[in-house]
Amino acid sequence: MQAVIIAIGDELIGGASVDTNSAYLSARLAERGIVAVRHVTVGDDADRITQAITGATEAELVIITGGLGPTLDDLTRRALADAMGVELIEDAHSANRIKAFFDRIGRAMKPSNLTQAMIPAGTEAMDNDCGTAPGIAARLGRADVFALPGPPNEMTEMFEQQVAPRLGVAGALARTILHVFGTGESDIGERIADLMARDANPKVGTTAKGGIISIRIVATGQTSAEADAAADKTANEIRNRLGELIFGQDDQTLASVVGDALKDCGMTLATAESCTGGMIGRMMTETPGASGYFLGGIVAYANSAKTAMLNVPAEVIESHGAVSEQVADAMARGAREKFGADFALSVTGIAGPDGGTPEKPVGLVYIALSGPSSTKVHRHIFSGARDIIRRHAALTAINHLRLALI
Amino acid sequence: MQAVIIAIGDELIGGASVDTNSAYLSARLAERGIVAVRHVTVGDDADRITQAITGATEAELVIITGGLGPTLDDLTRRALADAMGVELIEDAHSANRIKAFFDRIGRAMKPSNLTQAMIPAGTEAMDNDCGTAPGIAARLGRADVFALPGPPNEMTEMFEQQVAPRLGVAGALARTILHVFGTGESDIGERIADLMARDANPKVGTTAKGGIISIRIVATGQTSAEADAAADKTANEIRNRLGELIFGQDDQTLASVVGDALKDCGMTLATAESCTGGMIGRMMTETPGASGYFLGGIVAYANSAKTAMLNVPAEVIESHGAVSEQVADAMARGAREKFGADFALSVTGIAGPDGGTPEKPVGLVYIALSGPSSTKVHRHIFSGARDIIRRHAALTAINHLRLALI
Repeated sequence: MQAVIIAIGDELIGGASVDTNSAYLSARLAERGIVAVRHVTVGDDADRITQAITGATEAELVIITGGLGPTLDDLTRRALADAMGVELIEDAHSANRIKAFFDRIGRAMKPSNLTQAMIPAGTEAMDNDCGTAPGIAARLGRADVFALPGPPNEMTEMFEQQVAPRLGVAGALARTILHVFGTGESDIGERIADLMARDANPKVGTTAKGGIISIRIVATGQTSAEADAAADKTANEIRNRLGELIFGQDDQTLASVVGDALKDCGMTLATAESCTGGMIGRMMTETPGASGYFLGGIVAYANSAKTAMLNVPAEVIESHGAVSEQVADAMARGAREKFGADFALSVTGIAGPDGGTPEKPVGLVYIALSGPSSTKVHRHIFSGARDIIRRHAALTAINHLRLALI
Repeated sequence: MQAVIIAIGDELIGGASVDTNSAYLSARLAERGIVAVRHVTVGDDADRITQAITGATEAELVIITGGLGPTLDDLTRRALADAMGVELIEDAHSANRIKAFFDRIGRAMKPSNLTQAMIPAGTEAMDNDCGTAPGIAARLGRADVFALPGPPNEMTEMFEQQVAPRLGVAGALARTILHVFGTGESDIGERIADLMARDANPKVGTTAKGGIISIRIVATGQTSAEADAAADKTANEIRNRLGELIFGQDDQTLASVVGDALKDCGMTLATAESCTGGMIGRMMTETPGASGYFLGGIVAYANSAKTAMLNVPAEVIESHGAVSEQVADAMARGAREKFGADFALSVTGIAGPDGGTPEKPVGLVYIALSGPSSTKVHRHIFSGARDIIRRHAALTAINHLRLALI
């Protein structure tokens, strides 16, 4: 079963607001085995709305959000009636509900509010428990058409209460997302190319965001057990191929995975950050309960701070430079000692855009991990803008700790 | 002039991600007098992409985002060639840039990366300074068609650098963005409602993101001087009304403004962070050259770290709790002394979701600013999720320093 989702509003087409309704509906439909094939957004323009509705009836399901308000620029009712070739008529039940709503809140009803009770002849009004605009359930050609109010809280409530029960569900659906760090999307794409075939079940796709590659696996089956088994089989195949490049799944983050691993072995972490300026600390404390394993860190941005706060000898900085293997090593040891932590991560590098030299280019970052038995320094060259270099350095540091813990 | 904007990606049509690119492009086009009439989203399906492109050429301008990656499911190049009825050919300049990119980061290039250098015959590749995928500028029927990469940072950069200059603008355009911190969007909306009329010139609009309200002023005129003068006049009127709520404009951030102020008076800053976990440090070091005024900070997440690293007396933590005026005060003084800084900011609070009590609810945050002459503690209660509370606390701390410096 295929669906088209239409969002209506000048604020959306003009760019003042981002449409979140369509993504919400796509995800809810996908869970029911219904595939959204197109999202369309148009402004508050009756002809364009009519055209969008008519053009959508190639699909068996059309869901429209927005344009059901009481003002002149709310035109979905009119456009749907035009697409169906019928008149608007007042729905007595909805008119009574609107009157009762204004009585309840003790505000005078404007005549314009009653326009919200107008629906195309031959359609059905759907009660709105969060606002005044009823929804509309219609049939156009072979398509089921549902018009829902635009405000997300009203829309989601009406979808769950009124629309979802009217959708037959074709089989069951299972979804797993695996997260990868340490290589590019193209590398992953090649390693699992055979699993990414267009019509395969499970369907496998990748997305990259902020250095993390996420692999989505969506399986369908006659039953939940069948869908789950298909998703698990593919997930395990991908785990076998990518090994420790995969750091987690679903809601997990690099920091939460490392936090869990530290918690499991009762170990603690401290940080010593230069060019990342506190990013590792911020990431490690994103997860509630981080105080169980994250003791704290030192942002040693100035050289004097590296010496005073982390006991990095001034002569080491002088002879090797602040961005060097030796300084990274001393920073990690210093942080581990100062905080009394089991592990310490340090980062020193050149985030740019200035400050690079031929020997030490922008993007050069030394990351040290000091643990109970040894301190190891890793040299990296990251590319991109300052922010991207800093973010990759922070994630890479956390990943070094993850690899040490497994 | 009318435009259709097409977003491509299974993650968008499947509901895993919300499309923010289309709204961004609509807003930027509107500033140039170009009206977006339809947004269309389709998945990674060559036929549907081709169909979307063909159906969009009713407009004079078509902008496509996404589907330019190196993997099998990136099909925009192929679909655009099909819509144009031409073959894909390798663009030598783009191929060289991609090879150079991999040389620079020292990673082996996969053959699949070179598919990103393939463009439809007769089109032009547009350089991508933030990633490997070049954009494509094409002509289809009477429409100018631009294909841009999907990641928002690459997309916005390529739009501003490559696409915007190719769009004719009727007359001259001047844009100023004023940034506000410390009040809500509705409050700002009321104070400047008369300036926000739909058809006014300059056009004034507000957007809220992460606690910062940005007021966008876009003026058109026959000449640059005329447009600039109109934008300046409105900007000055808004500055008069909002006073020190406005912290900066255009590319400035709270941290960069505070950094400039510190630099101007030759003063230095250190931080002591608990619940923000390093966020203030990260923000203060986002700006290149931050080492001129930011010495460093201590992330004292564990109480033992507050005592050991910042000299907060253990008995003060015991009698008042880690989240208290007294501990915030001692943390700021400790950081100022340890780093030998002119100013120190400290933050201690309850970011949640757990750990709140009736006396000390989730969202309670103490922020102290210690300066050459005194230390002052501010008590705040922030609302929202853990991330939002942390971010607001960090921004509020930096804003306290800003207000102290002006």
